[in-house]
Amino acid sequence: MPSERALGVAVVGTGRMGADHVRRLHHVVSGARVTAVVDIDAERARTLADAIEGCTAYTEPAAAMAAQDVDAVLIASPGPAHEAALLEALDRDLPVLCEKPLTPDAASALRVVEAEQKLGHRRVQVGFMRRYDAEYTKLKRLLDSGELGRTLMLHQRHRNPAMPSWFTEEMLINDSVVHEMDVTRWLLDQEITAVTVHKPAPTSYAPEGMSDPQLVLFETESGALVDVEIFGHCGYGYQVQAEAVCERGVVRIDDEHGPRLTADGRWGGRVTPDYLERFEDAYDREVQAWADATRRGETTGPSVWDGYAAAAVCEAGVLSQREGRRVRVELIERPALYK
Amino acid sequence: MPSERALGVAVVGTGRMGADHVRRLHHVVSGARVTAVVDIDAERARTLADAIEGCTAYTEPAAAMAAQDVDAVLIASPGPAHEAALLEALDRDLPVLCEKPLTPDAASALRVVEAEQKLGHRRVQVGFMRRYDAEYTKLKRLLDSGELGRTLMLHQRHRNPAMPSWFTEEMLINDSVVHEMDVTRWLLDQEITAVTVHKPAPTSYAPEGMSDPQLVLFETESGALVDVEIFGHCGYGYQVQAEAVCERGVVRIDDEHGPRLTADGRWGGRVTPDYLERFEDAYDREVQAWADATRRGETTGPSVWDGYAAAAVCEAGVLSQREGRRVRVELIERPALYK
Amino acid sequence: MPSERALGVAVVGTGRMGADHVRRLHHVVSGARVTAVVDIDAERARTLADAIEGCTAYTEPAAAMAAQDVDAVLIASPGPAHEAALLEALDRDLPVLCEKPLTPDAASALRVVEAEQKLGHRRVQVGFMRRYDAEYTKLKRLLDSGELGRTLMLHQRHRNPAMPSWFTEEMLINDSVVHEMDVTRWLLDQEITAVTVHKPAPTSYAPEGMSDPQLVLFETESGALVDVEIFGHCGYGYQVQAEAVCERGVVRIDDEHGPRLTADGRWGGRVTPDYLERFEDAYDREVQAWADATRRGETTGPSVWDGYAAAAVCEAGVLSQREGRRVRVELIERPALYK
Amino acid sequence: MPSERALGVAVVGTGRMGADHVRRLHHVVSGARVTAVVDIDAERARTLADAIEGCTAYTEPAAAMAAQDVDAVLIASPGPAHEAALLEALDRDLPVLCEKPLTPDAASALRVVEAEQKLGHRRVQVGFMRRYDAEYTKLKRLLDSGELGRTLMLHQRHRNPAMPSWFTEEMLINDSVVHEMDVTRWLLDQEITAVTVHKPAPTSYAPEGMSDPQLVLFETESGALVDVEIFGHCGYGYQVQAEAVCERGVVRIDDEHGPRLTADGRWGGRVTPDYLERFEDAYDREVQAWADATRRGETTGPSVWDGYAAAAVCEAGVLSQREGRRVRVELIERPALYK
Repeated sequence: MPSERALGVAVVGTGRMGADHVRRLHHVVSGARVTAVVDIDAERARTLADAIEGCTAYTEPAAAMAAQDVDAVLIASPGPAHEAALLEALDRDLPVLCEKPLTPDAASALRVVEAEQKLGHRRVQVGFMRRYDAEYTKLKRLLDSGELGRTLMLHQRHRNPAMPSWFTEEMLINDSVVHEMDVTRWLLDQEITAVTVHKPAPTSYAPEGMSDPQLVLFETESGALVDVEIFGHCGYGYQVQAEAVCERGVVRIDDEHGPRLTADGRWGGRVTPDYLERFEDAYDREVQAWADATRRGETTGPSVWDGYAAAAVCEAGVLSQREGRRVRVELIERPALYK
Repeated sequence: MPSERALGVAVVGTGRMGADHVRRLHHVVSGARVTAVVDIDAERARTLADAIEGCTAYTEPAAAMAAQDVDAVLIASPGPAHEAALLEALDRDLPVLCEKPLTPDAASALRVVEAEQKLGHRRVQVGFMRRYDAEYTKLKRLLDSGELGRTLMLHQRHRNPAMPSWFTEEMLINDSVVHEMDVTRWLLDQEITAVTVHKPAPTSYAPEGMSDPQLVLFETESGALVDVEIFGHCGYGYQVQAEAVCERGVVRIDDEHGPRLTADGRWGGRVTPDYLERFEDAYDREVQAWADATRRGETTGPSVWDGYAAAAVCEAGVLSQREGRRVRVELIERPALYK
Repeated sequence: MPSERALGVAVVGTGRMGADHVRRLHHVVSGARVTAVVDIDAERARTLADAIEGCTAYTEPAAAMAAQDVDAVLIASPGPAHEAALLEALDRDLPVLCEKPLTPDAASALRVVEAEQKLGHRRVQVGFMRRYDAEYTKLKRLLDSGELGRTLMLHQRHRNPAMPSWFTEEMLINDSVVHEMDVTRWLLDQEITAVTVHKPAPTSYAPEGMSDPQLVLFETESGALVDVEIFGHCGYGYQVQAEAVCERGVVRIDDEHGPRLTADGRWGGRVTPDYLERFEDAYDREVQAWADATRRGETTGPSVWDGYAAAAVCEAGVLSQREGRRVRVELIERPALYK
Repeated sequence: MPSERALGVAVVGTGRMGADHVRRLHHVVSGARVTAVVDIDAERARTLADAIEGCTAYTEPAAAMAAQDVDAVLIASPGPAHEAALLEALDRDLPVLCEKPLTPDAASALRVVEAEQKLGHRRVQVGFMRRYDAEYTKLKRLLDSGELGRTLMLHQRHRNPAMPSWFTEEMLINDSVVHEMDVTRWLLDQEITAVTVHKPAPTSYAPEGMSDPQLVLFETESGALVDVEIFGHCGYGYQVQAEAVCERGVVRIDDEHGPRLTADGRWGGRVTPDYLERFEDAYDREVQAWADATRRGETTGPSVWDGYAAAAVCEAGVLSQREGRRVRVELIERPALYK
């Protein structure tokens, strides 16, 4: 049961995601309050801080973490800034919720793994929010129940309405498919051992020189085969689907939600326009679960090992994307802390 | 098994429905051929007959029925012309498939019942084609299986995209809801004992002075309660749905068929535009079943008793529609022939 | 924006619903804390209070409301106890979230209306939680948009897996259909003017002497017609559905949610077993919205007028249920406070 | 319009499929009759022939084709017997409907292509019945309309409830995936250029030494990428699904058909148990279309080129299955007759 005192959280990074987390901690999450916001843009940090009683603006993560009223850290800065903030927090033994990716590559992720190992206990939760989505949770529970036997294949779809101008082909792997990597590892409770990226002829809407969509295959330790359609510009909305093919049945989660309207010669429903709407509840549950666990003195959810493994699979994926061949995933042996 | 010789059919009435049956008998139905077409418009009859080898045009049903090559009669003329054609066919002991309504009112329908009784065996099948629809058939089979216990309520929807200019409020009952009357009697295997018509404030698209949509309640012998939404101008397509509420489950048939398209921010499918497309397969099966039974020397399917009962319920419905009160349905005792 | 200090809430009544609200306020809702629990069972109140830091147990609502750390009251005691607690809270100008029903009958509800009017501003929100359900909210938004024209009919289903032994036929109206009364008034933004209850032959699973299921018809000010199937023992789960028939389209909300499993010759999904699971998110949003509004010094959501109107429609419904006839709903003129 | 005289058809091979076609031609198809049945099992042929007026039993296809009353041939014998029967029929310029596969390998299929080319006009339709399925037809029409832009990917599922004891791993390709090969070529209107078979760890229900399920990838001339899940023992029914990912939308056809039953805590529908039920209507339409075209003196539908191309893709698929690598499909240049 949570202690009476609300958890004081420093939010590091106040871009789209960070600002949304400030709002979430302030208005939605029970038992937590934002006591610090950190941004290299001092003005931006101050504006946010001023709107919240008892909240201070900082430009340096370390300064915020040193404050008396900061009990925990939520990192939502750009990926390259994560490592330093994570090491600082671990150095202070502060609980962290770190937005994905843990760090931009496997080597830096490994340094975080090592730092936490040295600390001797888990303090970091990585922001793979799909694990908190109601449908994914039910799917996980069903697969874990054993009712359907082993999972043999996973078919996944990940479609975005369009890509921002600065989006690159590698980001299809590092920013988008990274979610399916985590989902796969989590649902099947095993590592991904190889990745192969296939590129069909691209849509006319793909930016010059970018192959979109792509089909990504994962192989896992037990020999399960996973295919992921990643589509950066499907044009119609944000859609994430998964289908598990098991020995005694098939189970599917998808987007056919909400009111069904029949009009103008058609029946059907609306597709969510973006990931913030699609996973709004999942983000709420994720941050609440983190705050609750933290107040109990625990660290739960996706670990830095999950962040490191995802980074390693991403590297293999980008290499396969570049060279058009199957690439094996190389991981260090899993430390006892994450078993 | 059908005899080798194809059934020679006289089609009486060559309007939209009749012409469609000529096409069906000629192209779709196995073991039957159109040997006569009858229409008061001689030119129209001749044009149709000329396109089919061995087919003769007539202006009088009796003349066609007297022809050597006419083994059976399909009546698709306007309702008021049905009685004479039916009595003529029964007089000659010719098998008949008669489009609904059997006749325009209960009194005339009763005369057909009496004529067939005098003949001593069934010769007439009434064209309630929903009994041949794949979904209705499965629903009937499930209800009959007893798996779900007794049927307590039926919710039905009957929506048309728009009404022709000559459509009247009474036709909402006589032409449209008559199908739900037959479906109710058939699914529950019992008579309708009372009808109450409720009229909500009409849609702006309703013709001047017409109440559209309406909610029609049936009570049945066993005390089941049935509601039918009849909507003449729903604007979006032709949609027919039924939901049976049983003691141990609920079963629903509806229109969410065909390819599911996701585009433009929506997922979903197409609504059939009219009853001919929605029930195309049912019409095919109905006429094939009639031809097959006829060649075996049998008469199956909806009987003139079903046609008479529907006419009596329609009369009660129109009266309730007019007077705004519950009206009891009065039926003669069911003759042994139809038990 | 909420003030920094968490809202101190006294929870009156700690049965199934009250205990669930204590848990919700403590663990889920942001910006509120339980500072008092009230139950005539002193032991029960003390056990609950002991588990929460800073929470005191009471046996009298008035005593709790007098406490310094009580800013607002959540009433979840049995219906007959509501009036006294409400009047006490209004007397102290304390914000209230009152579980439905407001009070057990229209006369007592009217006394609460009068008390709040005398106070001169709204302080009470009534617990019609469906207004906070994601699907109902989207339906409301769509109807309000005017995109589909006026709403002509509403078809609603309300099915429970089974009834507790103490459930009576009147409770089908007062406890169950009362939700559809509020939904109808809210979705259509108008009063219900008449009620007619129809009783089909009951299911074999109905308790001796109880008619289950029933079909309840509402008429509204604008002439819309609403039917509600209320089924106390459908046997398979808790299912709530609504379909709005509009001038330019039909929109439906229902329960076909969650993972789709295909196994054992069938595809499909799970039905929620009870209302707590089905409306879990709605309860969370309702109490959060109440806490947020209260901290802003506002009162939003369903008002005591809504509670009074529902009570009046319930009285008409129970009368119709008893006498088998259409009963008009009599309401006082709507006070300016609720316009 | 068909000529008056019914088409006399010789059915070659009277196993499960052949006997079903005899029934279909006799009872369902309009304008055709079975005048000959051929089977090496003379007794079996005679029994079938005796039940149909005007039908003669043969043990040799050539003898049946020489008969006066045989206008066309339906070949439903085992694959290895197809070539001889096809060449005989082409030699006599007789119209043929040949069940898939055209022949067991590309070399023999090529000999049939050459024979028809020498004849100078098409006479053979190959039995890829999915092209006549209502959903596939609608999908084809939608893709052809250009409304959704180019098709970039196709995801297909092909699940069987269980495999007969004599089923081999190669038959997963030659008997099952061959349908997806044809569907792919037909929907996209282009050839398949390469095949890669992936094998996840098999289900426990797979026969000793067989890899089941498998994931088969096709590449096409335009660069579209197609994945096919083939599952020989899914355990729950027969399920065939396809999803086309296009530039401006995604369209899906699947099995969520028929009545929706809610009972025992679940909602949903039934899965068809086998391909005969799933594609019953498609078979009916296929044979009717063949009879109609033949009576008009035309040959339509899948051609021997389609049969040859499927055989070539199958060979590549079996090689990939065996060697675990991507295999290019080699085709001769398409003769003018099939352009």
